[in-house]
Amino acid sequence: MSVSQEILNIAENELKAFLGERCSTAQAVRDQHGKDESWHETCSPDMVCFAKSTEEVSQIIKICARHKIPVVPFGAGTSLEGHINAVEGGVSIDLGQMNEILSVHEEDLDCVVQPGVRRKQLNEFLRDTGLFFPIDPGADATIGGMASTRASGTNAVRYGTMKDNILNLTVVLPDGRIIKTGGRAKKSSAGYDLTRLYIGSEGTLGVITEITLRLYGIPEAISAATVSFPDIESAVQSVILTIQSGIPIARIELLDEVQVDAINKYSGLDLPVQASLFLEFHGTEQGVKEQSQTVGEICKEFGADDFKWTTKPEDRSKLWEARHNAAYSARALRPNASIWATDVCVPISKLADCIMQTKADLDKSDLVAPIVGHVGDGNFHLSFVLDMDNPDELKEAEELNAKLIARALSMDGTCTGEHGVGLGKKKYLQSELGEGALSVMAALKSALDPDNIMNPGKIL
Amino acid sequence: MSVSQEILNIAENELKAFLGERCSTAQAVRDQHGKDESWHETCSPDMVCFAKSTEEVSQIIKICARHKIPVVPFGAGTSLEGHINAVEGGVSIDLGQMNEILSVHEEDLDCVVQPGVRRKQLNEFLRDTGLFFPIDPGADATIGGMASTRASGTNAVRYGTMKDNILNLTVVLPDGRIIKTGGRAKKSSAGYDLTRLYIGSEGTLGVITEITLRLYGIPEAISAATVSFPDIESAVQSVILTIQSGIPIARIELLDEVQVDAINKYSGLDLPVQASLFLEFHGTEQGVKEQSQTVGEICKEFGADDFKWTTKPEDRSKLWEARHNAAYSARALRPNASIWATDVCVPISKLADCIMQTKADLDKSDLVAPIVGHVGDGNFHLSFVLDMDNPDELKEAEELNAKLIARALSMDGTCTGEHGVGLGKKKYLQSELGEGALSVMAALKSALDPDNIMNPGKIL
Repeated sequence: MSVSQEILNIAENELKAFLGERCSTAQAVRDQHGKDESWHETCSPDMVCFAKSTEEVSQIIKICARHKIPVVPFGAGTSLEGHINAVEGGVSIDLGQMNEILSVHEEDLDCVVQPGVRRKQLNEFLRDTGLFFPIDPGADATIGGMASTRASGTNAVRYGTMKDNILNLTVVLPDGRIIKTGGRAKKSSAGYDLTRLYIGSEGTLGVITEITLRLYGIPEAISAATVSFPDIESAVQSVILTIQSGIPIARIELLDEVQVDAINKYSGLDLPVQASLFLEFHGTEQGVKEQSQTVGEICKEFGADDFKWTTKPEDRSKLWEARHNAAYSARALRPNASIWATDVCVPISKLADCIMQTKADLDKSDLVAPIVGHVGDGNFHLSFVLDMDNPDELKEAEELNAKLIARALSMDGTCTGEHGVGLGKKKYLQSELGEGALSVMAALKSALDPDNIMNPGKIL
Repeated sequence: MSVSQEILNIAENELKAFLGERCSTAQAVRDQHGKDESWHETCSPDMVCFAKSTEEVSQIIKICARHKIPVVPFGAGTSLEGHINAVEGGVSIDLGQMNEILSVHEEDLDCVVQPGVRRKQLNEFLRDTGLFFPIDPGADATIGGMASTRASGTNAVRYGTMKDNILNLTVVLPDGRIIKTGGRAKKSSAGYDLTRLYIGSEGTLGVITEITLRLYGIPEAISAATVSFPDIESAVQSVILTIQSGIPIARIELLDEVQVDAINKYSGLDLPVQASLFLEFHGTEQGVKEQSQTVGEICKEFGADDFKWTTKPEDRSKLWEARHNAAYSARALRPNASIWATDVCVPISKLADCIMQTKADLDKSDLVAPIVGHVGDGNFHLSFVLDMDNPDELKEAEELNAKLIARALSMDGTCTGEHGVGLGKKKYLQSELGEGALSVMAALKSALDPDNIMNPGKIL
């Protein structure tokens, strides 16, 4: 698709008449909306519209639909596979100002938010209610973005992913109509699961403008610990046995020695530079005690040191902040470096093999790429630390990434556990799902967005 | 759609050449496949094909697709809204012989089954592994049917519904092609969620021929109890507070005094004829103790009697068997009666209002309709005990059902928490979801099944 300058000018006039200064064509604004936190090159939209309501999103899309101009929804720009890069130009709809928490139903353990609400903002808002929203992808992403990429993160091993924690969505369709995908009942068998269809659809089927989220009571007891292992395999084997034992651990994060070294330097920790797990337990006082004792015994069996407990809440925050800054700490390992973050997910029994073989690949390479992962789900990340101006490094990262993905797929895993497809994983979808499943996705896309205006060039 | 006898004869010849005696046109076989356990009238298919493999299902569908003959997938026939009734005739594909458990990955807590596997069969098979599959809709349904209706049941309050417990599906598309919707990774962000699109699609988008299920370790400790309340509102308020307190209860089932009376008679129990809860706790010894103590205190606050514990496993089985036979026990309240079972689901805070208002409606009516429910999810059922030859009774049930659903929708609930849409709930979908969302569902349906051969007349 290519839109002529003439058409763009007409649309710009219409959008400016409607939104005033909230429709911008300033180069700096466009560039800021043309790139996420990934390695993919900037593709700036032709203009950026800052929406304040579902109704406004609907009007913007109606204008774009009439002119067949691409529409790219934008949250916080923290995605990792080029999801928001406007590869065909068009209009970026910035939803950041739609950041109201519309209602909290404490008695139903749910809340309704606009898509621009950030996850930290939500949890700060909720604190006095004794409730929290568990999904935590690390970045302070928007809830809309997290829904659109089917995000998960550190707590998913216990609380599930975005798909498990959304009751319904309000969506603006590619023709501007507004729909609601369901009510607030905890479960429903009323027709096709439109909620789940839109979760993870990366803005290619419409724009999510309201989200009803499940909430949880803040656990009576929370405790966190770090533990170091003689080698990475022992750490992973401990995770596997913990999961297989059915222990409802809330967080179990792996960091290889490269990553531990990086976060020691970046976040001022002094962990032994060894493969480590960061753990968190949620429950009653007694439950947490039982869980941590059992996991402690498992880790010991695999040669681990004693748990180092972080008892004070502020120390716990520091620990998880350090974990969340893993990618930034990796980037700081090298001056002017960029990060190429990739993620795969495999059945838990394959995790040790998958990580060990990947580690062996990395040992043979000159590239630095810390391994970090939500290993309780079988999900882990490589963060290639690259000089983006060096084509050899890029090529090597590309090859290692392809090898990692082929390995995960050969183990009945997926090319992305939580980052999404965006631009970067498109070429792997066919080997993962086959031509037939892709043709079903293509049929869904063209049924709902026949002019291919919604975030074109992504997923398919 | 109407298919000429001539076309049907050609298809019959082709199917018989392919399947031999496994393609039947015997009236008794057709009638048996023309009605589920609901009140909807029998609509027999023109023939019944007994498939033994995914490849056979594919071949059958290819023949039907070529002649544009309706295809209705059939599992155990235990659905409750006329899902398998062949309203436009055509071919019923009986998947009951596809009942192999193909693999159990104990180390990954998953298994792969054919769609005709029954839930009891699966759990008997798994017993020695120490694992179990929790979803339990009461009837000994097939896993394929449970997936197709997005079933849930007594354990859903803790373990979720079918949508939360399926990792991937093999599906035969309406043109006979075979797809797989994903791998065995515990989570994935690789494109549109085809798995969830097919879960709950009631055979209208294709036929599910393989299911990868999540399994759980059998809890270290399980204990079950019954408890009686002075009135139904106290029972419901106890449930609401239990859920709001975040207690990870495994089962919390409400039975009103009419239902208790019915199961006392049918299953030889001697419970006080009062509103009651059936409870089950899963966890460690200590965890179960903590949970049951807290719930006991909550119930006591609302005037309940002491818990009656069923300590022996065989007593526990008897208790849940009695609960599962609720509908049959209701039917036995009256000679030659039929049951019209309906279900709604509302946010938990609305549950007491919804049930009390419904109870008041029933008190004003001559109809008998026990109330029973998976109340931890806000989900409950009415079982109208009817003389189907009495049009006045049918009309009254219809009106009470409509009133119940309007009430649930006004409370932001759903017209079906777990039974599905089938024929019976079609007319309520628009008030629940609105025209826009229904048009999206219709667009999906016609994109994937343009000739409308897959279970026509259901959902939409």
